[in-house]
Amino acid sequence: QGTRDHPPAQAALRDRLLAAVVACFKRHGAAAIDTPVLELRETLLGKYGEEAKLIYELQDQGGELLALRYDLTVPFARYLAMNKVTNMKRYHVAKVYRRDNPATTRGRYREFYQCDFDIAGRFDPMIPDAECLKIVHEILSDLQLGDFLIKVNDRRILNGVFAVCGIPDSKFLTTCSTVDKLDKVPWEEVRSEMVGEKGLSPEAADRIGEYVQLHGGLDLIERLLQDPKLSQNKLAKEGLGDMKLLFEYLTLFGITGKISFDLSLARGLDYYTGVIFEAVLLQQENDHVEEPVSVGSVAGGGRYDGLVGMFDPKGRKVPCVGVSIGIERIFSILEQRLKASGEKLRTTETQVLVATPQKHLLAVRLKLISELWDAGIKAEMLYKKDPKLLKQLQYCEDMGIPLAAIVGEQELTDGVVKLRDVVTRQEVRM
Amino acid sequence: QGTRDHPPAQAALRDRLLAAVVACFKRHGAAAIDTPVLELRETLLGKYGEEAKLIYELQDQGGELLALRYDLTVPFARYLAMNKVTNMKRYHVAKVYRRDNPATTRGRYREFYQCDFDIAGRFDPMIPDAECLKIVHEILSDLQLGDFLIKVNDRRILNGVFAVCGIPDSKFLTTCSTVDKLDKVPWEEVRSEMVGEKGLSPEAADRIGEYVQLHGGLDLIERLLQDPKLSQNKLAKEGLGDMKLLFEYLTLFGITGKISFDLSLARGLDYYTGVIFEAVLLQQENDHVEEPVSVGSVAGGGRYDGLVGMFDPKGRKVPCVGVSIGIERIFSILEQRLKASGEKLRTTETQVLVATPQKHLLAVRLKLISELWDAGIKAEMLYKKDPKLLKQLQYCEDMGIPLAAIVGEQELTDGVVKLRDVVTRQEVRM
Repeated sequence: QGTRDHPPAQAALRDRLLAAVVACFKRHGAAAIDTPVLELRETLLGKYGEEAKLIYELQDQGGELLALRYDLTVPFARYLAMNKVTNMKRYHVAKVYRRDNPATTRGRYREFYQCDFDIAGRFDPMIPDAECLKIVHEILSDLQLGDFLIKVNDRRILNGVFAVCGIPDSKFLTTCSTVDKLDKVPWEEVRSEMVGEKGLSPEAADRIGEYVQLHGGLDLIERLLQDPKLSQNKLAKEGLGDMKLLFEYLTLFGITGKISFDLSLARGLDYYTGVIFEAVLLQQENDHVEEPVSVGSVAGGGRYDGLVGMFDPKGRKVPCVGVSIGIERIFSILEQRLKASGEKLRTTETQVLVATPQKHLLAVRLKLISELWDAGIKAEMLYKKDPKLLKQLQYCEDMGIPLAAIVGEQELTDGVVKLRDVVTRQEVRM
Repeated sequence: QGTRDHPPAQAALRDRLLAAVVACFKRHGAAAIDTPVLELRETLLGKYGEEAKLIYELQDQGGELLALRYDLTVPFARYLAMNKVTNMKRYHVAKVYRRDNPATTRGRYREFYQCDFDIAGRFDPMIPDAECLKIVHEILSDLQLGDFLIKVNDRRILNGVFAVCGIPDSKFLTTCSTVDKLDKVPWEEVRSEMVGEKGLSPEAADRIGEYVQLHGGLDLIERLLQDPKLSQNKLAKEGLGDMKLLFEYLTLFGITGKISFDLSLARGLDYYTGVIFEAVLLQQENDHVEEPVSVGSVAGGGRYDGLVGMFDPKGRKVPCVGVSIGIERIFSILEQRLKASGEKLRTTETQVLVATPQKHLLAVRLKLISELWDAGIKAEMLYKKDPKLLKQLQYCEDMGIPLAAIVGEQELTDGVVKLRDVVTRQEVRM
């Protein structure tokens, strides 16, 4: 349940998509690493907040207690700490596992690919953070997914907001996960969860509401830096200062047109400590609506400066910032689009089919195809002793093979091969 | 235990190796598929004989009972049956899981990559089988692993041997797994396991011994076809006839020089029904021994005509033959060789570092690198506001980045960029 096979047409599309994402990661100088699908259970413990119940655990068959990785970020942090790496730019494309309720039409699965790019190390503020946003911008532009928006916020600003609204520290994280629902449900519902389930006072909730419904650009950052209450909060001030710097860098990158500083963005995971962001597609190609509609998040990430320290025996911190591309949702969109267009993706790369028009020529085909393979040419033949020529040409058409190399008795006598263009039916003897 | 992280240098080597294997699979017209790491436990049940105890099971957390895949062959057969596919040439490169005793220096892990190529469908005999052997030959040649030998046998011949030696049908499979040890231990030990553990009569074991110590080429096939006892056995005759055909096709491919018909080859898994094969490296580069020594299997496979039928409600069979490349062992060899050579593999593909020689030029770097990224150029910069030029050039040398694009105050005024070749130190203004 919640998993799927990828038949060739899907695997080809997915490989093409992953290749585009990896090309972007390499363009930004990232190295690849790989970590096991299995992690010790204790490694995953206490890293995912309320989502931890969705972790797949392995049966105790003797030996270590294991679980399937839930994301690629925690294994990366574990890797850095274990190998005492303090400086690294890496990407990782691999499957992760969540015992979530699958919603396969929306691209939500229990086994799914994540494509992560992270920068670890102590650097000048917001330079790596800005690069992560540039990467999201590049990938979503390259893939031509239509209009998109990258929402940006900072956990320090959110925490500052909570503080000046009178929320106790102990309720920051849980309030955060309630705020995070604002992209799916209206403020009224979020407010009632705050007051009901989370036990905030109605006044505090209303004060939060005034902040978290704000979004804008540099102007909003400036306004909040002047905000009589927020400007008194150290964390918020730091966050707003960095946010201003971030917007400066994004202006140099020329991408602020797609960026929104959005105080409702909270992100579900516990480990974020600074800037957070999430990209949403605004409208699907086939929608004929006037108002752009959000179809959900296709990328997300943020800064997590404390996670690596949780795995280091001496608690040594390695600041990190990273982005994860939501490849499954993008895959769903591209798949629907391909289906709608009627275009057929080739599932193989075969350049030439080796064919014979008469019987008793299997040996000739085997000899010729062997020469082609040895010359690095992608070649196929039918696995029949005496296939009909028509069947062989039909196979070319079905599979999109552009050329047929035909050897009959005449060609054998003349010491030539007849090369046929399958589409134009033109033939040359060579 | 028995798993490992791949740091960048290893990941780069592994990616290069996998790319070479996949290139060969594509050259032979295979399409990619992907299946989940998770399979239903019942899918894996009864497919692996004595090895089944090594399957990783997931905890029962409600819902289906799951296990981690043990190989890529059983999931492929399940895929074919589930989707009623009767005809397919596919490759699959992915990780599999076995709770085996790890022997990491010899490249044996609990999580490891398999690279499988399989041909499913009803075809004329031995044509797809011959292609599988051609693929092994191409891959081991391409990778320049040194001398190798591909041992070939047929389960039908083995079963015929057992029959004419007086072994009851019920003991064929278990006798098979004892014979399979002949590549690691001498005949005397195998014989005593047959007589002791497996309960064969000493005479029967001796008769088997006469056969399974034979190996050769077409001449041996001809001799066994004339063998007074074997030639009376229907299965053995069929197997020997097909083996002769196979050698004919391999002669046309020009690869019989590396093929040995070897009656000791048995393969551990239950599901093989026809031809079986295994490739071994004969000698490691650094060995100074006269006699070639086997360093273990680096590829294996065979025909399994009954496996798909086990997953079909009506038992409909789809004949299959396939090969699995033992990428981990090959990886270990290449890694050792790389270490010995002192060669350093680049872990990134960055073409140019954007650098500035004076302070207060971060904005210039950000603007230039953004233009390079947008033009598809792989570019990096240091994440510092004011890095020293020497540090920037040092980074190029450390990472093998061939070019530095330098913009200082002079270049800004002149509206140019200074492009420096890191190795030759030559500079051009452009």
